[in-house]
Amino acid sequence: MAALTLHPDRLLPADPGVRSIARRLYEQVAGSAIISPHGHVDPRLILDDEPFADPASLFIQPDHYVTRLLHAGGVSLTALGVGEGPLSSERSREAWRLFCANWHLLRGTPVRFWFESSLADVFGVDQRPSAGNADTLYDLISERLASPEFRPRALLSRFNIEFLATTDDPADDLAAHRALRDDPAVATRIAPTFRPDRYLEIGRAGWPSTVKELHGDTGDYAGYIAALEERRRWFVSQGAVSADHGHFDAGTEPLEVSEAERIYRSALAGTVTPAEATAFRRHMIFEMARMSCDDGLVMTVHPGIWRNHHPDTLAGFGPDTGHDIPVQVEMTAALQPLLERFGTHPNLHLVLFTVDPDVYSREIAPMAGFYPAVYAGAPWWFLDNPSEIRRFQHAVTEIAGFSRMSGFIDDTRAFCSIPARHDMSRRLDAGFLAELVATHRLDEDEALETLTALVTTQPREVFKL
Amino acid sequence: MAALTLHPDRLLPADPGVRSIARRLYEQVAGSAIISPHGHVDPRLILDDEPFADPASLFIQPDHYVTRLLHAGGVSLTALGVGEGPLSSERSREAWRLFCANWHLLRGTPVRFWFESSLADVFGVDQRPSAGNADTLYDLISERLASPEFRPRALLSRFNIEFLATTDDPADDLAAHRALRDDPAVATRIAPTFRPDRYLEIGRAGWPSTVKELHGDTGDYAGYIAALEERRRWFVSQGAVSADHGHFDAGTEPLEVSEAERIYRSALAGTVTPAEATAFRRHMIFEMARMSCDDGLVMTVHPGIWRNHHPDTLAGFGPDTGHDIPVQVEMTAALQPLLERFGTHPNLHLVLFTVDPDVYSREIAPMAGFYPAVYAGAPWWFLDNPSEIRRFQHAVTEIAGFSRMSGFIDDTRAFCSIPARHDMSRRLDAGFLAELVATHRLDEDEALETLTALVTTQPREVFKL
Amino acid sequence: MAALTLHPDRLLPADPGVRSIARRLYEQVAGSAIISPHGHVDPRLILDDEPFADPASLFIQPDHYVTRLLHAGGVSLTALGVGEGPLSSERSREAWRLFCANWHLLRGTPVRFWFESSLADVFGVDQRPSAGNADTLYDLISERLASPEFRPRALLSRFNIEFLATTDDPADDLAAHRALRDDPAVATRIAPTFRPDRYLEIGRAGWPSTVKELHGDTGDYAGYIAALEERRRWFVSQGAVSADHGHFDAGTEPLEVSEAERIYRSALAGTVTPAEATAFRRHMIFEMARMSCDDGLVMTVHPGIWRNHHPDTLAGFGPDTGHDIPVQVEMTAALQPLLERFGTHPNLHLVLFTVDPDVYSREIAPMAGFYPAVYAGAPWWFLDNPSEIRRFQHAVTEIAGFSRMSGFIDDTRAFCSIPARHDMSRRLDAGFLAELVATHRLDEDEALETLTALVTTQPREVFKL
Repeated sequence: MAALTLHPDRLLPADPGVRSIARRLYEQVAGSAIISPHGHVDPRLILDDEPFADPASLFIQPDHYVTRLLHAGGVSLTALGVGEGPLSSERSREAWRLFCANWHLLRGTPVRFWFESSLADVFGVDQRPSAGNADTLYDLISERLASPEFRPRALLSRFNIEFLATTDDPADDLAAHRALRDDPAVATRIAPTFRPDRYLEIGRAGWPSTVKELHGDTGDYAGYIAALEERRRWFVSQGAVSADHGHFDAGTEPLEVSEAERIYRSALAGTVTPAEATAFRRHMIFEMARMSCDDGLVMTVHPGIWRNHHPDTLAGFGPDTGHDIPVQVEMTAALQPLLERFGTHPNLHLVLFTVDPDVYSREIAPMAGFYPAVYAGAPWWFLDNPSEIRRFQHAVTEIAGFSRMSGFIDDTRAFCSIPARHDMSRRLDAGFLAELVATHRLDEDEALETLTALVTTQPREVFKL
Repeated sequence: MAALTLHPDRLLPADPGVRSIARRLYEQVAGSAIISPHGHVDPRLILDDEPFADPASLFIQPDHYVTRLLHAGGVSLTALGVGEGPLSSERSREAWRLFCANWHLLRGTPVRFWFESSLADVFGVDQRPSAGNADTLYDLISERLASPEFRPRALLSRFNIEFLATTDDPADDLAAHRALRDDPAVATRIAPTFRPDRYLEIGRAGWPSTVKELHGDTGDYAGYIAALEERRRWFVSQGAVSADHGHFDAGTEPLEVSEAERIYRSALAGTVTPAEATAFRRHMIFEMARMSCDDGLVMTVHPGIWRNHHPDTLAGFGPDTGHDIPVQVEMTAALQPLLERFGTHPNLHLVLFTVDPDVYSREIAPMAGFYPAVYAGAPWWFLDNPSEIRRFQHAVTEIAGFSRMSGFIDDTRAFCSIPARHDMSRRLDAGFLAELVATHRLDEDEALETLTALVTTQPREVFKL
Repeated sequence: MAALTLHPDRLLPADPGVRSIARRLYEQVAGSAIISPHGHVDPRLILDDEPFADPASLFIQPDHYVTRLLHAGGVSLTALGVGEGPLSSERSREAWRLFCANWHLLRGTPVRFWFESSLADVFGVDQRPSAGNADTLYDLISERLASPEFRPRALLSRFNIEFLATTDDPADDLAAHRALRDDPAVATRIAPTFRPDRYLEIGRAGWPSTVKELHGDTGDYAGYIAALEERRRWFVSQGAVSADHGHFDAGTEPLEVSEAERIYRSALAGTVTPAEATAFRRHMIFEMARMSCDDGLVMTVHPGIWRNHHPDTLAGFGPDTGHDIPVQVEMTAALQPLLERFGTHPNLHLVLFTVDPDVYSREIAPMAGFYPAVYAGAPWWFLDNPSEIRRFQHAVTEIAGFSRMSGFIDDTRAFCSIPARHDMSRRLDAGFLAELVATHRLDEDEALETLTALVTTQPREVFKL
């Protein structure tokens, strides 16, 4: 059995001189509390504090980072239980065996780093997963999961998570958040995030009934706007700090009110065209910025994904199953209308994410380097790996400096990967700053101050915590 | 005279600690047999086994990598004999002199690495080419070329090439391949590749007569499809493992059969529009994927090149003379119809190449990291150099892992550069893996296993050898 | 007070072995005279040789690199005196204080490197700027500025600038340049540059009166062409070596003369459409290339910028105030008509710049690696930083070699940053070449020859000095 060990210098630069600087820097922030201003943990997970059922349903079944790699390697999503409810213990064990036997498929990926860290740091695993030890590891993790120290709240506390934002439907009553806030045993601040995508995509099948969830059935355009404003205020009152927007493009061209009203009526009548729906959605992102200037919600934008590229997989296993594929994205023209109007508004914080890394140096950093409202969001989704994070660090800091970065955002559904994701970020930040020190571009005291800010004060400022 | 020496650690990482890991890894695969699943060697070169005529016709005249650099530096293509038949010995010597006098133009390019390796390793040259020693080198190489050890078959054996794919017209009778297969003196497996581009581009001048080469003159659309299917089966029977497609874009949108029939008739009548021809070609790529699911030919796609950017050069010297220029390419939308239908078909292997490196992390790796049919093809053409290969390695492995790579493909017309190209790839793979080991992202036994797979088992699996 | 010190090895590679090679290379060119073939220094600055007024008007007020970073960090452009005339000494001091207090905003940017070098090397500052020492530094620099050694001509001489190109309007009488040329006390060759953008953008408000500045009020299209030709000849007679073109895209599609005449008349009548104006401008770039083949002016092209992205800032503070944002650019198709006609013309030198770095490897290097007319312009504007310069070096040399690069171009309005910008480039070139030596891709004598060429002979050849 090969050993699984976590080297203390993992991910730090290979050059011994640079590494020793990086190690000094990293050590100063390694233990800092985690601020997670955008992610996909279900608040009920913390509220209910039920034990995790088994290794596969914790680590594999819900994590499309893992299942897509196994699927590409020839493992069926059915065998992994994707899109199903709870698995029988036999099926869970079988999924875990498939995972362990295919551990080599993760080589070179950040998933491997996160997984290793979770297994070793959280569960005390000291063997590299393989077909040969799959059952042993399954039993070991299962045993741990049954103990109180591995319940969600215990892990939340052990992970030292200071702030955790969830992602929520505007129609959500936020009862889970309220209960968590009222519970003195929960030290972490758990905040909802306003995610109105499906209400703004008026061309989607079923939208007329979707929108009724928001403001009843008498709605006209003015009522719709009022309802969105009201739901945002409700979210703010319940502790929300941001609104998140994930559409195909980054367009923000506003419409005349009369045109918006007309398209809105068409959508209710089911006669809206795709072009009208797109125009309306772009108009609504402009409106969302206007509302953010009023209510203060930080605006995060995640464009440029072709969702559900493989329809058969969507039909069989549901969305978020590993076949969302990036497309080229354009921001300079797309965001111009919004920034022309609100780019210097003191209340607007607009955090731009991309899965098209060309946009960092060409568009995001130049905009973040002028507009006080614009921040460069940390590398997201397919880009949350060491080489793309290094590219982001170079592209953004050399054009806009460190102060225009959002700080790290984990954006994860995999609860146990949260500390490993933040740890990867801290190591990479330390390594990047160490390179600047080693090439005499920054003094070490400045590097330490910068690293500390990136981990602590900067996400607090950007997300108004 | 400056010496020409090949340092044993060339191209390995500069950091001493990383280099020592890389050296250990590299040594394990340095001598492995070469698998070359896509290239442009003429099978008659091996069949006839005639001595190479002279240094210029071997190294310069046919190699647009070399001639384009000299041309940019002010040397005329005429002086290099581009597009001509055999050169007189005076003109050959003159071309060689121009090359040697301009050796400095190759600095920093991979051409320099390949050339140095060929000169030193294959021909025993130990002086850096220059105006001063051009004649000496010419005479030395000429003398070697006249000896039996430098005939094509002897080199093929010395280069340790286990598998070599050529690129062939669907109408080819493959007689040369048959003769090679029947010759017990040829140990290398030499396979044809089905390259139907000119039959699918129905808007090109002369297409109606082109297509007659394929299926006689009574053809309708159904006959055309049947003829393509039949020629593919013939290629398979003659040892072909793949079909190669090089068009301007990566589109795969299928047409209704009636529409395909209509456009096909227009093309025969010479009235097809450019838009119809493009739609038809995209439809045919979809059809090619369908056929691959039936007959098992691996499908390789090389889109995104503006061919013959300088028409005067085309007119004077022919195609493939150094002025094909890349354009931006899009794959997520373009390949969606094909992948929706065939992306999980167990018989389809689709290897995606690009000369637009932005596509690696944004599109190719995300698709290869989900679809079992999709592989990331090794960096091609303008990207077959150390920095772009490193970028490819990072982009693909961090998103999709090592197992989704095609293994190295040399794609060359320059016979003597084949070992140097594979050697460059092995050195860069060793260096990349050594970096992962040095930053504690991979254990050394895993790195060695991965490197061995990339050089041996992986190209065999991807190309179904 | 933290010290401000310039480490002798700054920006050189961190690896000790590579650094020692880089240091040897760098030392050979560190003191070479500066050749600056494209920039924005006002010739009257040198002609008049007035002392610089104060630290803020020298270093901050006119430099949008600095003011945009402060603006993004929350400092108003008003407080920095952007777009105003001379500042009172109180406002100047206040702007300087804001700058010093926000020194940390420059961390990681090249602005920081340039600024540090200027402060330490030119003004002898030995403290890191901060709120605490702002007044001390202000007084120190002010005192220096009052002394003869800090007048423009003295600095020009101290900076060892051999050649300095300005950027000038075609209607300029070039009197300042003539006076400078006639002044034996000015050793630097100061050349005008022909920049006709506003005469070619016929759709802009006010163009009919703009064009009258060029050729009186009876102009037809033929007269307009003749006037441009005449002004170019005038510039050539006054020492100009290049013409510079900065438009939204890189298009060069020529029009029929009759169509050009028609659009020209529409523009004079104020009825031209945006599409016609764009077509005309692309036609005129083709015409400019034709003229360059006649009069020999080197043609530099700087496409791909959305000018004045924030209209309120334009209205309040003028253009060039930090909110020009790059857009995606395309060159392969756009330049094809020009290169088809003139790409091998012996008189044409076409230097391509980009703010979309994807274009380096995909389009610029492949074109520069074939067309003798095409050179890859050094990284420009948002890309003039260490990481993007390294990317440019890799992309261009690995595809087209070193000989197709323009040599460094500072393109700056910040007079005191010129030596620091060239020094950064030399350090980065030395480091890049040292990496090639350390990985045994180049011998050290070749690296030294290459570096020397990049700093001396190559810009002279490319710009025909």
